[in-house]
Amino acid sequence: MRIERDKAEILGGVRFGRTMGGPVAMTIANLDWENWREAMAVEPAPKKAAVSRLRKVTHPRPGHADLAGALKYLTYDAREVLERASARETAARVAAGALCKGFLEPFGIEVLSHVIAAGGVWLRSEVAWRRIVALPDSSPLRCVDERLQRRMIATIDTARRRGDSVGGCFEVVARGVPPGLGSMSQQDRRLDGRLAGALVTVPAVKAAEIGEGVRGVSIRGSDFHDEIFYDRRTRRFFRRTNRAGGLEGGISNGAEIRVRGYLKPLSTLSRPLRTVDLLTKRPARAQVERTDVTPILAAGIVGEAVVALVLADAVVEKFGGDSLRETLRNHHSYLAALRRY
Amino acid sequence: MRIERDKAEILGGVRFGRTMGGPVAMTIANLDWENWREAMAVEPAPKKAAVSRLRKVTHPRPGHADLAGALKYLTYDAREVLERASARETAARVAAGALCKGFLEPFGIEVLSHVIAAGGVWLRSEVAWRRIVALPDSSPLRCVDERLQRRMIATIDTARRRGDSVGGCFEVVARGVPPGLGSMSQQDRRLDGRLAGALVTVPAVKAAEIGEGVRGVSIRGSDFHDEIFYDRRTRRFFRRTNRAGGLEGGISNGAEIRVRGYLKPLSTLSRPLRTVDLLTKRPARAQVERTDVTPILAAGIVGEAVVALVLADAVVEKFGGDSLRETLRNHHSYLAALRRY
Amino acid sequence: MRIERDKAEILGGVRFGRTMGGPVAMTIANLDWENWREAMAVEPAPKKAAVSRLRKVTHPRPGHADLAGALKYLTYDAREVLERASARETAARVAAGALCKGFLEPFGIEVLSHVIAAGGVWLRSEVAWRRIVALPDSSPLRCVDERLQRRMIATIDTARRRGDSVGGCFEVVARGVPPGLGSMSQQDRRLDGRLAGALVTVPAVKAAEIGEGVRGVSIRGSDFHDEIFYDRRTRRFFRRTNRAGGLEGGISNGAEIRVRGYLKPLSTLSRPLRTVDLLTKRPARAQVERTDVTPILAAGIVGEAVVALVLADAVVEKFGGDSLRETLRNHHSYLAALRRY
Amino acid sequence: MRIERDKAEILGGVRFGRTMGGPVAMTIANLDWENWREAMAVEPAPKKAAVSRLRKVTHPRPGHADLAGALKYLTYDAREVLERASARETAARVAAGALCKGFLEPFGIEVLSHVIAAGGVWLRSEVAWRRIVALPDSSPLRCVDERLQRRMIATIDTARRRGDSVGGCFEVVARGVPPGLGSMSQQDRRLDGRLAGALVTVPAVKAAEIGEGVRGVSIRGSDFHDEIFYDRRTRRFFRRTNRAGGLEGGISNGAEIRVRGYLKPLSTLSRPLRTVDLLTKRPARAQVERTDVTPILAAGIVGEAVVALVLADAVVEKFGGDSLRETLRNHHSYLAALRRY
Repeated sequence: MRIERDKAEILGGVRFGRTMGGPVAMTIANLDWENWREAMAVEPAPKKAAVSRLRKVTHPRPGHADLAGALKYLTYDAREVLERASARETAARVAAGALCKGFLEPFGIEVLSHVIAAGGVWLRSEVAWRRIVALPDSSPLRCVDERLQRRMIATIDTARRRGDSVGGCFEVVARGVPPGLGSMSQQDRRLDGRLAGALVTVPAVKAAEIGEGVRGVSIRGSDFHDEIFYDRRTRRFFRRTNRAGGLEGGISNGAEIRVRGYLKPLSTLSRPLRTVDLLTKRPARAQVERTDVTPILAAGIVGEAVVALVLADAVVEKFGGDSLRETLRNHHSYLAALRRY
Repeated sequence: MRIERDKAEILGGVRFGRTMGGPVAMTIANLDWENWREAMAVEPAPKKAAVSRLRKVTHPRPGHADLAGALKYLTYDAREVLERASARETAARVAAGALCKGFLEPFGIEVLSHVIAAGGVWLRSEVAWRRIVALPDSSPLRCVDERLQRRMIATIDTARRRGDSVGGCFEVVARGVPPGLGSMSQQDRRLDGRLAGALVTVPAVKAAEIGEGVRGVSIRGSDFHDEIFYDRRTRRFFRRTNRAGGLEGGISNGAEIRVRGYLKPLSTLSRPLRTVDLLTKRPARAQVERTDVTPILAAGIVGEAVVALVLADAVVEKFGGDSLRETLRNHHSYLAALRRY
Repeated sequence: MRIERDKAEILGGVRFGRTMGGPVAMTIANLDWENWREAMAVEPAPKKAAVSRLRKVTHPRPGHADLAGALKYLTYDAREVLERASARETAARVAAGALCKGFLEPFGIEVLSHVIAAGGVWLRSEVAWRRIVALPDSSPLRCVDERLQRRMIATIDTARRRGDSVGGCFEVVARGVPPGLGSMSQQDRRLDGRLAGALVTVPAVKAAEIGEGVRGVSIRGSDFHDEIFYDRRTRRFFRRTNRAGGLEGGISNGAEIRVRGYLKPLSTLSRPLRTVDLLTKRPARAQVERTDVTPILAAGIVGEAVVALVLADAVVEKFGGDSLRETLRNHHSYLAALRRY
Repeated sequence: MRIERDKAEILGGVRFGRTMGGPVAMTIANLDWENWREAMAVEPAPKKAAVSRLRKVTHPRPGHADLAGALKYLTYDAREVLERASARETAARVAAGALCKGFLEPFGIEVLSHVIAAGGVWLRSEVAWRRIVALPDSSPLRCVDERLQRRMIATIDTARRRGDSVGGCFEVVARGVPPGLGSMSQQDRRLDGRLAGALVTVPAVKAAEIGEGVRGVSIRGSDFHDEIFYDRRTRRFFRRTNRAGGLEGGISNGAEIRVRGYLKPLSTLSRPLRTVDLLTKRPARAQVERTDVTPILAAGIVGEAVVALVLADAVVEKFGGDSLRETLRNHHSYLAALRRY
């Protein structure tokens, strides 16, 4: 989960610091590759290889792709599944997301994440953008409320001592998104579905929420909706609340986009989970590969990346263009048209 | 929201009760069309048409696509947006979903929904498949717990009397899904993301959950995961719990797929929402077009449909084939291979 | 092949003569439906239906999808394949193409077709746009050279008298296409591949050519390429020749796009083709369903439609936008930028 | 064009010689990279870099993407376009195609190419599969007729001496393709369109032909179609001719798939083409970057690759499956069903 230490190297598609219209290729070297050279070799395994060195995984871990993937791809070594399902795959998405963030920046669109829950400790109030921006790189959990963050950490520490783990929740906020991305016209064009779908693909995320979507179940309608106002000076429609998370009818409405990912707790050490040996079908104990108590911090970063990917896609869809200058020009004239509306 | 009264007519793609490999075309007549013939005419409006008869909507409703869509598509009549964003569009998905359910049936895959929350009243316990199947057509809310259902209805009635509205939550359950649909290998192939994304496109749904995804945030890892067992008689892996909702690493694991949609409350009559006139930009009150207190029942039916669409897609992806017989044959030999695994 | 008599009825997506951002649904009634009501019924066939009235096709016709489709879709009645593979399916594409032509018109993009070969008679010289535009609706073959057209018709008549058939070639010309549609960056973005691929899907078309692609095999390089010039007055690059058919490196270059479809001759009456009965596997004679000597005229019209579909797609890709006004504005500012280049 | 010397290195997706279900990543090192390190640097160019070392291309070459791409992507250095449009991009497709060929082999599907025209010299007769297989690696043009090949080479040599260039034509043959790949049901599922579209994306290819598609224009229908026979011993339908190139109605019919790509001649040295300087807009002479007289040999190899990619895609579509064993099992039971048909 040490994504922040990885470095992506650009192999193609960029010249003199600018993309050229073709695909951008990047690699992120696996810093631990030396230790895996034998177990993950591209070449056929030597006939007499010590089995132990192939690092087979025959005790599939509950809560991971291990068993379902082994059955799907017809392998008796879940290693072939879990290496692709692992957090390392998300490094590629973070790299691509960084590219998208760079693309979105000149449009005034920024994407950030922060943590709002860990181990049952919740930050319930809405968090202003400036507080998220102000989070220092050194923030241990990227939670804006220091007192709550200490309680979150305490809960995590307790779980760690007990060999247990906890879940969490992160929020991704995108600022500067113009109204009109996505569409109500077809299921696959709705921006809410594309964002929620993307969030749930982040490992360990089992639920996605737009705005106050979960709490909305228990709120009365008279208290939920974001009323519409108009500012004659800036010639813009605006809202005073944002329970909709910036999305109405599958379309961005000009408010900040706020979406959340809910993480399940990872497998634990305290009570090694019961599983079955893939070969003998006998009861076994699942190996615990990871010792992180919660991947909430990394998951938020991956969440930012997938949101940036969806938004970059939606921006290109809406504004077209084959150079940053052209896409920006179209964006600019759309905003001008909105002011004349 | 009277979807159940609509009838889909098949225009093409079916002969003698069987599909033929080409697209199936269906129409659902709008039973209320006569009243809209003038306001929604395909032909250019007569120059001297009484404006009132064009049924323009210039006071966009908060919580709907009205304003964002009017800006996006550059129209001063939100009618052009809301008619497409309306629940009528979902009728087409329900019709297509019915076709998919018919396709899934010979594979032993069944999809049903039930309601687990309305207006803050929650059914917290896991609901067995047989209880959902047993729900009578006359069930007012499709909630399996009669006592809770009465409380839900009471809450809805109270809200109605106050001119208010409530949210809700439905669960879609798919039984008989084989392990191995979807894939951990790429973001867009993960079945969890495809299901969550589809659910959030159902109107009023603002959050989607896989299994116990929301509660997972507050559960310790030692209590969350579904341990793996093996039944030597049926030669199948199985679980005794299903907190993962039948999906691990983006792949179906053979357990029931359980996903949930969270609905916000609709706009209300009691406190007409503040909005802005699209032409004058003056403050206005949003028209309330609908008087349903909650669309939870219909949303569950649409939820079933979108889940059936995603699963049918995943079945064709996994088993290929160009006739039901061929696809079933491939499915059958896959299941046989799983037993030999 | 009497496509020109069909009328498409718009069912949805258009209001007061304008599209609204959602899908446009159209139906084209089958004027001959009464005669097929029993043989193509959606409902299960009555158990005691006279087999003769089901109009089964058990003698698959060489040169059509009949046999390959019957094997693929596992049916013993090739009727289920040939009705979808028939020219009627192309009526839907012509209707959609007409919509696209209407969309392209305000961009100054026009798409027309004309016939350049029938039955071995070739019009070899390049045909100027104005001559194609000038073709009267009454033109029997849409060939601009009246003398050659008479020879083509004579050849067709001779073939008809002998119960034989002939092939042909049509050219589709698109004028006003700006430089920069499509891309060299990836196989699936190249406009040449998308156009050639679309043309070959027109029934009976077995080859597609961009510009002088076929003749290019036998021309020396020193005579083939379209040299580049610049007009300081209009501030535009231009060419004096157009052997490339307006496409270089998979990108439109601003010249007229010229693509051609080569048609095989249809099955004939004079020598009923040998085939095999699907049930008995005994030798049989293929039924001849159609008596057109050549579908070259209709194929050209379908060719226009598929080209218009590809170009409309490429225009939306390049210029984005959610209303005609927005897309046009982006187009306009791109053209202005080209003049400033 | 020395594709055969390049080596692809597999970076991921393969373990112990087998793919694992995830994407396969490969790199092909640019052996000439050292000479381009400065001109194609990813990093921003040093402010004081000698312009000459940046290898800018400001005289766009007719017949290439240079000008259209420079306008599209808004650059004054066509180098940024031509490097992506160059034959090097096809090396990636050849590598991916090799993977597909390896996948297709256990299905009994083989894909090969041979040259049938160069510089106006044509091999007119149909070439049997065994003659293509027998072509030695040392074959200078991969033409099976040695006498014609000598004439082709003579023509090429003459052109080279004159500083001129010639076009050519290659044929790709796929053997062992089962009937039923592709579909007549929708434009984008037709295998003929997908193959023709792919072929035209091979650089310099300006036309694509299925079977005898070009000659079909001039043949009478009574001589064109491939009659259908049945072999009771092998229980298979078969043809004695293959003018359709193995595709009827957009579906493979079980015969060899035969498709052709027509190449234009490349730019020449003898008469440097007239062009315009991108900056000054003054007349200029196009630089000639390449000295190959014809890329016909390499184009055929790329043609094989794109055909293999399309066929692998169609095989997965038809047979589904997540492991070679599963896909093969489905393939096998389909073939058995065809024998029982």
